[in-house]
Amino acid sequence: MPQTNHPVEQQWSSAEQEIARQACDRAREREMTALLTYVRETAGAIASMETLWKLHDFLSARRHDLDSKYAEDQYDAMIFLFARLIKEGWLSLEDLAGLEASKLTKISALTRL
Amino acid sequence: MPQTNHPVEQQWSSAEQEIARQACDRAREREMTALLTYVRETAGAIASMETLWKLHDFLSARRHDLDSKYAEDQYDAMIFLFARLIKEGWLSLEDLAGLEASKLTKISALTRL
Repeated sequence: MPQTNHPVEQQWSSAEQEIARQACDRAREREMTALLTYVRETAGAIASMETLWKLHDFLSARRHDLDSKYAEDQYDAMIFLFARLIKEGWLSLEDLAGLEASKLTKISALTRL
Repeated sequence: MPQTNHPVEQQWSSAEQEIARQACDRAREREMTALLTYVRETAGAIASMETLWKLHDFLSARRHDLDSKYAEDQYDAMIFLFARLIKEGWLSLEDLAGLEASKLTKISALTRL
């Protein structure tokens, strides 16, 4: 039989689903807190329209990014999201403790790509 | 002869053109200064993503508004722009001193619409 290109769907126990959801919530919370802190700290010093529109462009990009990033509701796709969040610094592998070793290995491998 | 709906084009002396341009620049400067002050004062207190995205929506609207508002380069159309700027508080009739009385009368009448 030829190999197919379809990824094998993984099983996610209800405990793992809960860990995944909590990790997502935690990463989003951290990312949003960092964004709010950044805006509070930088906006107070804005002195020109050029800087104001740069902040506006930055917020447009962050909003679009945040809206799409955390919209994922397929657990298998979360493997990629977790790798991205770890690379970006919003999650660590410790936040995912409790997931199957095979999933953690995949996530870890993806962070090194 | 039936009346046409075309407005009669007015003559703008070079002195009037200069007054109009300076008034536009002054209004834009005032409006931008007020916007920068508002953002500096409010952004420092943003504590939730909801408030942040409200500020983002507000900036999107202001940016669009400012870009289109001051793009006018037809002097006759500036009569309407000046009336709007007076109504919004960015100009006063004193800023337009030196324009022909007929133009000031039109602008003044438009501010009362």
